[in-house]
Amino acid sequence: MTEHPLDLIFHPRAVALVGVPSNGAAGGPGWGFLTSLLDQKFQERHPLYPVNPKMTEVEGLTCYPSLLDTPDPVDHVISLVPASAAPALVEQVLQKHVRSVHFYTAGFSETGDPALAQVEAAMVAKLRAAGVRVIGPNSLGLYVPEAGLAFMNGFPREPGNVMVVSQSGANAGDVIFNLARRGVRFSKGISFGNGIDLRSYDFFNYAAEDDQTEVVTAYIEGVQDGRRFFEAVKHCAAVKPVILLKGGLSSVGARAARSHTGSLAGSIQVFDAMCRQAGAMRAENMEELHDLVIAVNTSVRHVRGTGIAVVGIGGGYGVLASDAIALEGLDVPELSEATQEELREFAVPGTSVNNPVDTFVRAPADLERMIRAVGRSEVIDAAFVNPTFGQPTGTLPREEVERRAAEAARQSAELLARVQEETGTAMVAVTRDRGAPGPGGEEFLLEAYRRGVAVYPSVARAARAIARIRDWRAQREGLPDIF
Amino acid sequence: MTEHPLDLIFHPRAVALVGVPSNGAAGGPGWGFLTSLLDQKFQERHPLYPVNPKMTEVEGLTCYPSLLDTPDPVDHVISLVPASAAPALVEQVLQKHVRSVHFYTAGFSETGDPALAQVEAAMVAKLRAAGVRVIGPNSLGLYVPEAGLAFMNGFPREPGNVMVVSQSGANAGDVIFNLARRGVRFSKGISFGNGIDLRSYDFFNYAAEDDQTEVVTAYIEGVQDGRRFFEAVKHCAAVKPVILLKGGLSSVGARAARSHTGSLAGSIQVFDAMCRQAGAMRAENMEELHDLVIAVNTSVRHVRGTGIAVVGIGGGYGVLASDAIALEGLDVPELSEATQEELREFAVPGTSVNNPVDTFVRAPADLERMIRAVGRSEVIDAAFVNPTFGQPTGTLPREEVERRAAEAARQSAELLARVQEETGTAMVAVTRDRGAPGPGGEEFLLEAYRRGVAVYPSVARAARAIARIRDWRAQREGLPDIF
Repeated sequence: MTEHPLDLIFHPRAVALVGVPSNGAAGGPGWGFLTSLLDQKFQERHPLYPVNPKMTEVEGLTCYPSLLDTPDPVDHVISLVPASAAPALVEQVLQKHVRSVHFYTAGFSETGDPALAQVEAAMVAKLRAAGVRVIGPNSLGLYVPEAGLAFMNGFPREPGNVMVVSQSGANAGDVIFNLARRGVRFSKGISFGNGIDLRSYDFFNYAAEDDQTEVVTAYIEGVQDGRRFFEAVKHCAAVKPVILLKGGLSSVGARAARSHTGSLAGSIQVFDAMCRQAGAMRAENMEELHDLVIAVNTSVRHVRGTGIAVVGIGGGYGVLASDAIALEGLDVPELSEATQEELREFAVPGTSVNNPVDTFVRAPADLERMIRAVGRSEVIDAAFVNPTFGQPTGTLPREEVERRAAEAARQSAELLARVQEETGTAMVAVTRDRGAPGPGGEEFLLEAYRRGVAVYPSVARAARAIARIRDWRAQREGLPDIF
Repeated sequence: MTEHPLDLIFHPRAVALVGVPSNGAAGGPGWGFLTSLLDQKFQERHPLYPVNPKMTEVEGLTCYPSLLDTPDPVDHVISLVPASAAPALVEQVLQKHVRSVHFYTAGFSETGDPALAQVEAAMVAKLRAAGVRVIGPNSLGLYVPEAGLAFMNGFPREPGNVMVVSQSGANAGDVIFNLARRGVRFSKGISFGNGIDLRSYDFFNYAAEDDQTEVVTAYIEGVQDGRRFFEAVKHCAAVKPVILLKGGLSSVGARAARSHTGSLAGSIQVFDAMCRQAGAMRAENMEELHDLVIAVNTSVRHVRGTGIAVVGIGGGYGVLASDAIALEGLDVPELSEATQEELREFAVPGTSVNNPVDTFVRAPADLERMIRAVGRSEVIDAAFVNPTFGQPTGTLPREEVERRAAEAARQSAELLARVQEETGTAMVAVTRDRGAPGPGGEEFLLEAYRRGVAVYPSVARAARAIARIRDWRAQREGLPDIF
């Protein structure tokens, strides 16, 4: 790994948590930072110093009266102090030779008050002059599983290949929690809020070089320096898939963005054109961001043609699936006579074999044969398959029911991965919108993703992901191939 | 309840299941019908006669060699025999004075084979001449919880106010399973497949008169008699909300519909115009069908204006929510200075109170006060609120964690219902797309629905439901008010 100045911020030797709430306020704002760090076991690897003059101990850790009382060195400070106390903390940070400060603290330029914006500007000027980098203010800061840093409880502890850059902490949380459940793991997560020093483009430039990051996704409200933003996105998107979601594209959304991060939101047309020129993908909403991250980390990224096979139970399901696929400009081509002949061997008489293929079969093994025949078809680029992993009923104890369902789910995922590898056709699992996933649902998601099989909650979302990947490849003509 | 000829079909005194698979084929096609009926406990109320010459007993019930050997009377026959055996069964049905036959049996006109279509036509002609009504062929038949009839395992046993009419059994299953989990219950469900005798319009006409049905939703592939279909929809939509989903609106979907139910699908424009003229809602996809059923059974049906309050944690969430709401032509208006003043009492400094409202609060009780203040605002027609019911952690046993979460979820739903009633503003719960609902999620769905509070899985879907209800009300001008 090349040494990059930001690596130091992502891998601090010691962290001070200044303004940690007193025990009485446990559960209140700010408390989550301490428990998030404990959840990641940061304190088992490096010193973690809570600072609050009213306590001497918190959650088993020594609590210090001030930052200046903590042992040396402290590389990274997380500021939970109120805005009014922030300037005094800045002085201590300079005295302590801290390398980076993350201001969870809000109440500066995003309030729209010019006096507070000036306080913010003066703080960053002082810190920058001393070489101290700033994350925030008005931000949740860093998630670096490898280093044991996190800003919410329950983020995965094991690292992965996706970097999340976000102007909003809660949105970063939505991305990380949603995708984690679908098997994705993360190299770094950054909530940078007002971005008075480190901004989205710093993180894109870093991501381009970071060996641990293979995919970059970002939630952006305001672009503070259009030229540098564009150059950084382009630099990064030349070598890694970059998926951007822009908030504030409507006028009401833009007003909300102003009061959230003080951002001046631009038009959808300008942002869209920028993404296209830079070779990045623009997600239209949060769901699409999630779905595109899944796409670039599974076989969906390789889909080049428009031929989709619909393989699922029920003729009506096939009809609606075809409509949804057509809406995305993709096709549900008829299968060749030879393929249909092969499928007829396993199909229940009266069910369709010409695509959509009705997989109402007599024996479970027939399902695999049908999927394989479909995967081998020359007109098919991706097969949408309803995963089945039975829902054992009866009087078994709940734990046993869940154990069996999990095992069946893993086998079902393994089957799709096997056929995908054998046939070279992307297998895409599409779950039915019947409400909560039954037992085994979570295991299926994890195992399928691990094996490179995408799982989407509807045909519409699966088709959309494929269409977006195809658009993106087309718009990148002239840029280096990533996949 | 007025006596309607179809009431007899929905409430048979005795049912024969002809062609029930032998024990060796348990789990195979057809077996589900027996277990569905057992699941509904039909046999505890009325005789249920399995018929199969190879068995004398099945699942504890006497099995008869032929329909003619069953005791009298048999009102309703469910045919699981192969297509080739169907004409012989028709003769027995006539001899036995059965009132209605449901052909699960497929392999007739939907195959595209003119000879098979002729067999189908001859069968229906004979049965109709004798006054026997036919459901199907190629269909899953009837779900009447009150009578103990069902065609899939796990359908709710208690009746409700929604009638589901579907040309596809699997799609009817998707509707019933999805909505049941969200609290909806059903008066009748009908999968009518090829519809050679009883068709969608018969069921719409019935639904218009049926006291137990307050809402009608249908999945349609082909409209066999446009005039009668239109008149029936109009008749029904004059007095009850009717939500229609049309499959086969794309050319690939239309091809799939032809091979599924032999239907000739029409254009989206024609169908849309028909819905508007008749005063029905056209759902664009299965999700929207689900969401509109929720809308017409909760306070969403009363929303008249465009003013939406976004009440949730995180500024970025509010920005994206505003964008999604604007996309549906709705507004996120600024709150009056007085309302903002009131909200500032509870809000954490630095968070937004002007709408979107950031409900990052210090004490749980503050949440209720904030929602109430928003609900009282004159510019707000509906408030989108993230339900919170804590996720208790720690070392408690799993059952205890779930019990507490369920209790908290019920209280959270009750809170929204209380504020909704007090303020007259629709409260709409929007869950965050963070993956699986935690413990309490199911209880929240059920309790909120029971109290007239809609729950949607995203802001986009909540906004869409409100926009559709408003469109529908506008297009009904001149028709009687339903809400």
